Amino acid sequence: MSEEIKNEEVLEEVEETEETVQDTTEAPEKSELDLANERAEDFENKYLRAHAEMQNIQRRANEERQSLQRYRSQDLAKKIIPSLDNLERALAVEGLTEDVKKGIEMVQESLVQALKEEGIEEVPMENFDHNFHMAVQTLPADDEHPSDTIAQVFQKGYQLHERLLRPAMVVVYN
Amino acid sequence: MSEEIKNEEVLEEVEETEETVQDTTEAPEKSELDLANERAEDFENKYLRAHAEMQNIQRRANEERQSLQRYRSQDLAKKIIPSLDNLERALAVEGLTEDVKKGIEMVQESLVQALKEEGIEEVPMENFDHNFHMAVQTLPADDEHPSDTIAQVFQKGYQLHERLLRPAMVVVYN
Repeated sequence: MSEEIKNEEVLEEVEETEETVQDTTEAPEKSELDLANERAEDFENKYLRAHAEMQNIQRRANEERQSLQRYRSQDLAKKIIPSLDNLERALAVEGLTEDVKKGIEMVQESLVQALKEEGIEEVPMENFDHNFHMAVQTLPADDEHPSDTIAQVFQKGYQLHERLLRPAMVVVYN
Repeated sequence: MSEEIKNEEVLEEVEETEETVQDTTEAPEKSELDLANERAEDFENKYLRAHAEMQNIQRRANEERQSLQRYRSQDLAKKIIPSLDNLERALAVEGLTEDVKKGIEMVQESLVQALKEEGIEEVPMENFDHNFHMAVQTLPADDEHPSDTIAQVFQKGYQLHERLLRPAMVVVYN
């Protein structure tokens, strides 16, 4: 950030100097030496400007690379989340044999683990938070269920690092 | 590509010119004009060099961005593939009810679809190809099973665009 400010200052300086150069070129009767000096100054300014721009390009490219890396799994993760919903629904079916249940749980765990390793996790569920949750229904709050307590989760929510991929659909006391 | 070659030519030219400049600076008794001209030339070279470098940095950043985008799902995909294996094993279990089978197939299809949309697909299985397949066992080829025919697939292989994520484990006639 301070790098950017520095570069911008350089660019401003360069612009100011260039204006001065242009003013003086309008004056008549310049010596060969004046012209050579002006040419030197002109290229020095161009050089400083190109150098500053180069550093800005490099910095922006680094920032962009980091962001691409951090959120690279976003699209695939979003498309995989419905499979997790389906697995949960499959586990809720009555009369599963122990083998089948274990098999489905294994798939579920390996998917959750794969997503976790890439930074994708369920959103926090302590209290209602409009940043993470969508209230699809409300219930009247009482002494046992204070306002903003989550009563029921219809569908889990997921985030990639601090970025929300899908809000949790909840019933909340209000 | 031709852009890069152009820039490299500029850099070479600049270097040659700089050597000339350095040679002449060793000569004594230079006029103020000579020095100003040298300064101008020096900054012109520096400017040209910075400009060429800037273009190279920009080009490389673009290439890197494209590559990061193209292969962004690689790591998550690799970690999800074992879940597909588990789903296939689950489907192979005897005595699944129709409901359970449908449920598992739905999860399988949605995962395969999610991966496909991100460029991940099974490797081609027409004939044995060491770029895609790993032979874990061989069988003697005969008239009905010519050499390089795949006899059996132990584990599916997957690729992301043209990049192999995991080879298929196969039995091949040889």
